[in-house]
Amino acid sequence: MSTKRIGAQTVALQTPPSIIGHACVVGKKEGEGPLKDSFDYIGEDSYFGEKSWEKAESAMQKMAFSMACDKASVSPSAIGYLFAGDLLNQCIASAFSMRDAGVPFFGLYGACSTMAESLSLAALSIDGGFADISAAVTSSHFCSAERQFRFPLEYGGQRTPTAQWTATAAGSIILGSIGSGPYVTHVTTGKIVDAGITDANNMGAAMAPAAYDTLSCHFTDTGRNPDFYDLIVTGDLGDVGRSIVLDFFRDDGLDISANYDDCGLMMFSREEQDVHAGGSGCGCSAGVLCGHILNGIKEGLYKNVLFAATGALMSSTSSGQGESIPGICHAVAISKEVQG
Amino acid sequence: MSTKRIGAQTVALQTPPSIIGHACVVGKKEGEGPLKDSFDYIGEDSYFGEKSWEKAESAMQKMAFSMACDKASVSPSAIGYLFAGDLLNQCIASAFSMRDAGVPFFGLYGACSTMAESLSLAALSIDGGFADISAAVTSSHFCSAERQFRFPLEYGGQRTPTAQWTATAAGSIILGSIGSGPYVTHVTTGKIVDAGITDANNMGAAMAPAAYDTLSCHFTDTGRNPDFYDLIVTGDLGDVGRSIVLDFFRDDGLDISANYDDCGLMMFSREEQDVHAGGSGCGCSAGVLCGHILNGIKEGLYKNVLFAATGALMSSTSSGQGESIPGICHAVAISKEVQG
Repeated sequence: MSTKRIGAQTVALQTPPSIIGHACVVGKKEGEGPLKDSFDYIGEDSYFGEKSWEKAESAMQKMAFSMACDKASVSPSAIGYLFAGDLLNQCIASAFSMRDAGVPFFGLYGACSTMAESLSLAALSIDGGFADISAAVTSSHFCSAERQFRFPLEYGGQRTPTAQWTATAAGSIILGSIGSGPYVTHVTTGKIVDAGITDANNMGAAMAPAAYDTLSCHFTDTGRNPDFYDLIVTGDLGDVGRSIVLDFFRDDGLDISANYDDCGLMMFSREEQDVHAGGSGCGCSAGVLCGHILNGIKEGLYKNVLFAATGALMSSTSSGQGESIPGICHAVAISKEVQG
Repeated sequence: MSTKRIGAQTVALQTPPSIIGHACVVGKKEGEGPLKDSFDYIGEDSYFGEKSWEKAESAMQKMAFSMACDKASVSPSAIGYLFAGDLLNQCIASAFSMRDAGVPFFGLYGACSTMAESLSLAALSIDGGFADISAAVTSSHFCSAERQFRFPLEYGGQRTPTAQWTATAAGSIILGSIGSGPYVTHVTTGKIVDAGITDANNMGAAMAPAAYDTLSCHFTDTGRNPDFYDLIVTGDLGDVGRSIVLDFFRDDGLDISANYDDCGLMMFSREEQDVHAGGSGCGCSAGVLCGHILNGIKEGLYKNVLFAATGALMSSTSSGQGESIPGICHAVAISKEVQG
């Protein structure tokens, strides 16, 4: 019988897995932003030595995974499961980056929620007794995403004020059954929420209802108040979506503005980097988590973090057929220490 | 510590989850094939009452899920996790079919291996104590796949002899921690294997090395001989891929031809239905498993089945950039009874 489930959507891990390695690799623009000191590697250009943007994205992901393994002192052959996904059609960034890894592989598609989805499943695989070490990997690339979802870059299309900027970034986390933390303590898995938004240039608004749904469910399931966390962070709603989430909670009588931020707003400087409503893409929340946040926990900046990555489960085909944009949000609670 | 792992890639489930509901919905052509009596619903045409093939695929998947819930006497609200994926860009068939389900949702991308991938994770989620009931869903649709991966149907392109026919089919399985079987006893998770095949019209050859890799690993990990199973079934290698797998095993001194079949060869009559090397698509192996095989286990035709769905992790972009085709195969052992 299910004993670890503590509410409709949340599992409390009995033996919280430890984050034993984490790394992120980003592009030049991301490396010029406010979090530049937190990244493990900043590319000189968008190609990472490859001939296409898709291959560049794979190269970036491969590098993040290798660095995370290295920092964890783990050989890929010791990894029980690898959970990976990305935004590209048929998730080729992950498939090609991991094709030589030699690790049992579960491919995921969670759009920009993939860092939280992969981390959730990696944590469950360890707590369930199925692996001693598991890994999570994801990425996005501005150029491969633009030409797939919007227009070829050469077209020079105008962006609306609500549009977000897909980050060129990859992040990877290695989890172990044994380690000195930070620990993954809770996994709250999101339901698909579709609020009827059809504007593909306003992903923040499309995903905000899913973020609110998962966050409020997490608080109900765990009995924790929002102020238990030093940082509640969604990724990536940008400015528009973050405001909507704040409004939803205000309607519930909760002001979470003091400790609530969004990876899309943390990755770039909106004043100086012209990213409109903020950053987005699987790599945005992955880069912020695997750099600034996890470093911050280790350095004592944060003690308890709720990482809630959001995804828009649409395609250019679904938008072309007049469909609205379903959103999803998965939340993972990470603590420096485990209460014992 | 990991106690359920019994080898490099295999987990032996301690409390094997029971398949408490399963259903499949197929198109007209599939409903004229040799397995026609095993399907729960056969569509009159390719549209399933919708205006586009993508929406038709979602409708088919939704119907299979509803029927499986109904046969399990389970309300969607009782389902702890739903694992779903498909072949379409950004997996929209799954996202749109499940957007109203209200179930914690993990989106997957495993190409045509998705039925085995989703069933694997659903089984692990129950055995790990994270849910009492979990669900797996997948689909493919000939028309949506053709226009996305190959050419618009109106183009009337010629098919090569090694080409396979994407099945129009959806399958869903509901797993419970309590039930009278059939039971999922073992999960062998595949690694990505890339043998360097670049011909996108010969997926069978591209995926066969992954199938051999996972099957032989399963036999090593479990200590079972191939003849433990009444049926070892890959999906979907077709005629070309099946021959390659047989050859690989012959090189190891094993003749598995008596109890080894392929879902791509079972779904259609190659003599009468002009599918060239056989069927393919997530829905092909899902339809064969959720119809003929699971019915067959209940009716006593099979006692122990090894279901090994295969996927080609490529896209038209990766092929266009000259990349070879990485393959993957996930295997799930299903038994009528659990040895005490």
